[in-house]
Amino acid sequence: MYINYMGVTMSRYNKNREFLKADFSVLNSIKTDKQKGLPTPLFQKEYNHEQTLIDLPEVKKEIVFKENVFDCLNDRRSIRRYSEDSISMSQLSYLLWSTQGIQKIVNDTNTLRRVPSGGASHPFETYLIINRVEGLEEGIYRYIPLEHKLMFMYQLKNIDEAIDKAAANQPFVPNFVSKGAVIFAWSCIPYRAEYKFDITAHKKILIDVGHLCQNLYIASESIECGMCAIGIYDQKTIDAILSLDGENEFVIYMAALGRKLKF
Amino acid sequence: MYINYMGVTMSRYNKNREFLKADFSVLNSIKTDKQKGLPTPLFQKEYNHEQTLIDLPEVKKEIVFKENVFDCLNDRRSIRRYSEDSISMSQLSYLLWSTQGIQKIVNDTNTLRRVPSGGASHPFETYLIINRVEGLEEGIYRYIPLEHKLMFMYQLKNIDEAIDKAAANQPFVPNFVSKGAVIFAWSCIPYRAEYKFDITAHKKILIDVGHLCQNLYIASESIECGMCAIGIYDQKTIDAILSLDGENEFVIYMAALGRKLKF
Repeated sequence: MYINYMGVTMSRYNKNREFLKADFSVLNSIKTDKQKGLPTPLFQKEYNHEQTLIDLPEVKKEIVFKENVFDCLNDRRSIRRYSEDSISMSQLSYLLWSTQGIQKIVNDTNTLRRVPSGGASHPFETYLIINRVEGLEEGIYRYIPLEHKLMFMYQLKNIDEAIDKAAANQPFVPNFVSKGAVIFAWSCIPYRAEYKFDITAHKKILIDVGHLCQNLYIASESIECGMCAIGIYDQKTIDAILSLDGENEFVIYMAALGRKLKF
Repeated sequence: MYINYMGVTMSRYNKNREFLKADFSVLNSIKTDKQKGLPTPLFQKEYNHEQTLIDLPEVKKEIVFKENVFDCLNDRRSIRRYSEDSISMSQLSYLLWSTQGIQKIVNDTNTLRRVPSGGASHPFETYLIINRVEGLEEGIYRYIPLEHKLMFMYQLKNIDEAIDKAAANQPFVPNFVSKGAVIFAWSCIPYRAEYKFDITAHKKILIDVGHLCQNLYIASESIECGMCAIGIYDQKTIDAILSLDGENEFVIYMAALGRKLKF
């Protein structure tokens, strides 16, 4: 029975398992769009430059509360209950700096950031659903990494309901996502990576968003915030909330974050 | 022409893009192996208990050289040239502790570690190809996280050649992988996650190995080591080197690491 069960299991999973493996042989028989000389995708999504952006405070080392990296690595946990306190703009600025802040522009397509990304393609945008940040009204924002600024997108009525619908079926603590001071929603613009890696891009994209999210864990721990990454969410609902087309850009991963509860 | 090109591009990439999205609706119509009450997969691969394991030094906070987490986040880069110096056993112990060390055993299947993993399934094993670690002979080792010890697997003749073949076509610095003091090769045992998440497991597995590798970046930076993650490798070659069957266990990601060059 075990063998039969294993037999069934294997055929059921095989196709997806192939996706986890490295197979670059396809690149020997095709030209990537980069090799064809097609126009480069931009490293940052365009936005309306007439809209006033919101400044984020300069990131200074003094923001760090739990300074020692050893403690930050050791104490990190996924935290699903948050205090009702707000986080400061300086803290938000640091969290964005840690995860997607641009350190160097390589060319139109590539940037160096505080997380690695295969081919320096960084195929992500950061959206913030903000409940409690000092000095910001509740609503949905986009991070503009090149300027290190925020773009206001929408006020969100019934934010809790919408978010809990988008992040349905969380384990352990029901509806905790909407209780975060900030909810990060990272979208993926896959063509930024496909341009160079074609159909070998997609494994790399998922690994890269893990790199990024781990930096949010470490940075959160260093400022006494707690967070929980969210892989289980309703794709159509969250894409609709953020006005993403769901094909050329769509949410790939999320995280809820807030001040830690004091016991 | 641009529209036509976009049309072609889209159909080419669509199938892989679907893999990046969240679709848990399948879980409404099936029972997972966990829900069926099938035997739980183990959180650690079995090994021959008659073999003597190699102790790793206790991990102490004093190992950290660059202490401030802000600096570690800010200074991290992918580094492809290493000094010829060895790393110490204490440093290796810290790097393993940071990435896959077990903090708590939840049950037969689940553990809590210093990186998050959806459903606490941690579907990875850590293999080390060791060139220059004080007190260890060159060769291939497996990390046994529950004991925080190493298991010696093989001496490796012509280690450079084999590794450079396995990690072919690296950008920027040819054949740098074999010059690392240690090469990490993380394998995936997908069933550990499939047991609970069925065919929705695989997106999560890739994100999780990104979490893990980012902790290696941060920990490396804190002890003046440099590293580079390796997504481009030859699947069959590396699986053969590590004696993995390529179906129920296979390499999913790698990293080369060494002492930083002093300038």
